[in-house]
Amino acid sequence: MHAPGNTLRSQERMEQSTGYRIDELARRFGLEARGDATRVIRGVAPLAHAQCDQLAFLANPRYASDLACTRAGVVVLRAEHADASPVPVLVASDPYLAYARLAALFEHAPASEPGIHASAVVAADAQIDASASVGPGCVIESGSVIGPGVVLGAYCVIGPDCTVGAQARLGAHVTLVTRVALGKRVLVHPGAVIGADGFGLARDQEGWVKVPQLGGVRIGDDCEIGANTTIDRGALEDTVLEDDVRLDNQIQIAHNVQIGAHTALAGCAAVAGSAKIGSNCQIGGSAGVLGHLEVADGVTITAMTLVTHSIRSSGVYSSGAPLEENHAWRRNAARMRQLDAMARRIAALEKQVEALTKERS
Amino acid sequence: MHAPGNTLRSQERMEQSTGYRIDELARRFGLEARGDATRVIRGVAPLAHAQCDQLAFLANPRYASDLACTRAGVVVLRAEHADASPVPVLVASDPYLAYARLAALFEHAPASEPGIHASAVVAADAQIDASASVGPGCVIESGSVIGPGVVLGAYCVIGPDCTVGAQARLGAHVTLVTRVALGKRVLVHPGAVIGADGFGLARDQEGWVKVPQLGGVRIGDDCEIGANTTIDRGALEDTVLEDDVRLDNQIQIAHNVQIGAHTALAGCAAVAGSAKIGSNCQIGGSAGVLGHLEVADGVTITAMTLVTHSIRSSGVYSSGAPLEENHAWRRNAARMRQLDAMARRIAALEKQVEALTKERS
Amino acid sequence: MHAPGNTLRSQERMEQSTGYRIDELARRFGLEARGDATRVIRGVAPLAHAQCDQLAFLANPRYASDLACTRAGVVVLRAEHADASPVPVLVASDPYLAYARLAALFEHAPASEPGIHASAVVAADAQIDASASVGPGCVIESGSVIGPGVVLGAYCVIGPDCTVGAQARLGAHVTLVTRVALGKRVLVHPGAVIGADGFGLARDQEGWVKVPQLGGVRIGDDCEIGANTTIDRGALEDTVLEDDVRLDNQIQIAHNVQIGAHTALAGCAAVAGSAKIGSNCQIGGSAGVLGHLEVADGVTITAMTLVTHSIRSSGVYSSGAPLEENHAWRRNAARMRQLDAMARRIAALEKQVEALTKERS
Repeated sequence: MHAPGNTLRSQERMEQSTGYRIDELARRFGLEARGDATRVIRGVAPLAHAQCDQLAFLANPRYASDLACTRAGVVVLRAEHADASPVPVLVASDPYLAYARLAALFEHAPASEPGIHASAVVAADAQIDASASVGPGCVIESGSVIGPGVVLGAYCVIGPDCTVGAQARLGAHVTLVTRVALGKRVLVHPGAVIGADGFGLARDQEGWVKVPQLGGVRIGDDCEIGANTTIDRGALEDTVLEDDVRLDNQIQIAHNVQIGAHTALAGCAAVAGSAKIGSNCQIGGSAGVLGHLEVADGVTITAMTLVTHSIRSSGVYSSGAPLEENHAWRRNAARMRQLDAMARRIAALEKQVEALTKERS
Repeated sequence: MHAPGNTLRSQERMEQSTGYRIDELARRFGLEARGDATRVIRGVAPLAHAQCDQLAFLANPRYASDLACTRAGVVVLRAEHADASPVPVLVASDPYLAYARLAALFEHAPASEPGIHASAVVAADAQIDASASVGPGCVIESGSVIGPGVVLGAYCVIGPDCTVGAQARLGAHVTLVTRVALGKRVLVHPGAVIGADGFGLARDQEGWVKVPQLGGVRIGDDCEIGANTTIDRGALEDTVLEDDVRLDNQIQIAHNVQIGAHTALAGCAAVAGSAKIGSNCQIGGSAGVLGHLEVADGVTITAMTLVTHSIRSSGVYSSGAPLEENHAWRRNAARMRQLDAMARRIAALEKQVEALTKERS
Repeated sequence: MHAPGNTLRSQERMEQSTGYRIDELARRFGLEARGDATRVIRGVAPLAHAQCDQLAFLANPRYASDLACTRAGVVVLRAEHADASPVPVLVASDPYLAYARLAALFEHAPASEPGIHASAVVAADAQIDASASVGPGCVIESGSVIGPGVVLGAYCVIGPDCTVGAQARLGAHVTLVTRVALGKRVLVHPGAVIGADGFGLARDQEGWVKVPQLGGVRIGDDCEIGANTTIDRGALEDTVLEDDVRLDNQIQIAHNVQIGAHTALAGCAAVAGSAKIGSNCQIGGSAGVLGHLEVADGVTITAMTLVTHSIRSSGVYSSGAPLEENHAWRRNAARMRQLDAMARRIAALEKQVEALTKERS
């Protein structure tokens, strides 16, 4: 491995950052400080490696053993762990949530100069707010509107009739194909493609006939779209993501899908055409939802599960067969093909045994 | 949600578009018109929301309930639904196919000026037809040929020794790595990568040894390649897609795969090296086909199925365990690991019961 | 199909390439030559189609039938097949490995001129070795270091604080987002995104709160990263791939994952956050590994398997239900939901039968 410089650099960055006293952090985020609250914190680090000017957190009990020997400046944790800490603590009912907010103080988002890079290609009738930052080589086509504070990374291609809401940030190589509207503060990671043709095909004698895809895509405020994720535009109406939907990398959202607010999908999940997913759902990695189905609010789907029918009530749902050593798996999997026959044999046995039992009495 | 302007714009576009009388549409597409056939149609819309100058269709019975209260100018439907329509109809044996052709009249593909954008980087010996449109920043390397009427979106990178057939359209950020040939009218969506190295590795004591990938990729006429889909070039011979193959988004086609004409793969499907898939197959979303297998013509594979052996006859094939509420699933999945033992216990019971039954008589 | 020119071109290229006598090849690679070793070889081709100046190989017995009628100049094969060859042979204990090395002689990697393309956008403080080749439109941001002999394809975007090791080659449209370090000779195929934000979310009353992703990505020497693959940067520590890790296309590696040396993942595999995979593992296509798990060294995971618990010892592991014709599959899958009940019925029968058997005696 040849990359020590990397980690070093990011740690230096921490040291340079402004410091905050622990009691100041407690006040700002409504947390209870215990121990010497006058220490100054200049960055964040993992519990096991944090220095005396860095903040660490303990949320997952899996890592509780790291607490005893931590040298962190302060640890964010639940009350139950406070006494076990050798260093000052900030007590939080949800340490991970508290950490998320605290860490933001120490994050250094690359500053982006407002203005349009000389190499960008912008249509005469595109509207770009003066406070927006348009990176090298961006293409912005006719009828598109780029809002205030927007940052477009290098080589973003914004097709015709798109709108990008205030403070949205697009990484490099993001493509909005056509009729795509992004809400405020939307974050899109590199390589995502939003608004490509839905996969609509009719069949005649000669072969496939493409169905025109005349809709668009509407993405609400505060959504996050992962790297190389694809979201197709609707056939007639729009594909819709409501506010605060979070998509990980390499997710596929087909045409006319609707996803409710605060729903999150993990990496490589796929949702087929016209499926309607409720709000506050969590879809696991590599899971799939078939077309035209409905999934209720508050549903959790575990990883690599295939949703083959609509789900009407909240809860946790799964499919799939369990992990096994390959030889055992082969034996059991072969029996899967005999499962219906096995069930019939059990029923037959039950009849025979009932008969034998009757006779006896 | 902050994107009304978007939908509005696309509807305005409809209104501006040229109109067609219903009887004219009937004549042009060989359909039977019923009701007032003099109405003028200027666009298409969903059955539930169509206006009096818009065409709608009813194919999926799931949406039949929308017919009674539609205000569409005309509805394309099967004869059996005609009497139930409150508005004029166009009767078609396959309404979805008829709609696909009708809707094309109202589609407004972005016009592309012939010519090479000033920012494109073109090799001295590349041949680009005068009627082709080469977008901003496209790179066209040595020995490549761009045919008549081709449209290359922004930042397409066409590597050495590639050919792009007449009227092909490539979206933004498409990469043809090397030795890739696209047929006529091929449509490639943004971010697709065609012709990258196949994943060929040999092993020695020190580690992996890369196997040179010396083949290419040949894609027939009228194929469609989805956004962020990847198709590797062959190790020695070419990876081949025959005419009218349709690939959705984020599909992975490994080196030396062959796919027959008119076969369609849905999103996130993956085909491993040297697999040979017949013509007129349909592969569901997130499905997989293992390497070196053969799949016959006319095979349908359901979503998230893994094809682990060759399929010799047409039909529908599936794998996987069904969706359940998680607690029930856990109980049943645990038994999967006991399935072979269960089968043996059933056989033992059958012997004992047979013995008991014999004795009794 | 309209792409004959393609294959022709690559064959011409073979003919033009320098020739090597068979005995020279034998000496150079420590192989035993049998038959006329004075023939000159100018390229490689499949056993079935090779010409008299081309080298072919036979590794997979599946293709042994092609040997009898091959017209290749020489065939690389195991001793057991030598006598069956109508043409000269090179005997190797591992013909595929020997072929990998031999074929490299005939590969024509596109030569890349050292220097920075005029259209590239390079930060004042970026360090680019004079022997590196920086393609059209590349963007190299502040604090990044590009090593000797590196080749960056068109439109690579190298974000802040990245390092690219000597002789690394990046295809077109590769994005290194921030704090990414690539080792020596790393090969990255087009569209890969390395170092994007990990998918870290905390939840409060209003909705999701983004967890800052402050780590980086460290990739060892000789790694290969497939087209459109995504590797997220760590939340606090780095995501790490050790030396000689090989990733196929469209793989998703989440934040804080660690992958040991010489491990290979096939297309569309996904590894969730903080999972730790050992060295010399092979993960099949479309397989998944859940978060925070550990997988031992030397583990093989078959295609589309979901790893739901840590694996402590080397071996082959699988999950999933087998492929069946759809009607049979439906019958059996329905029984999956009754599996626990079936097991209880078997236990009940065993009790009853035991009772009946006792009585009888």
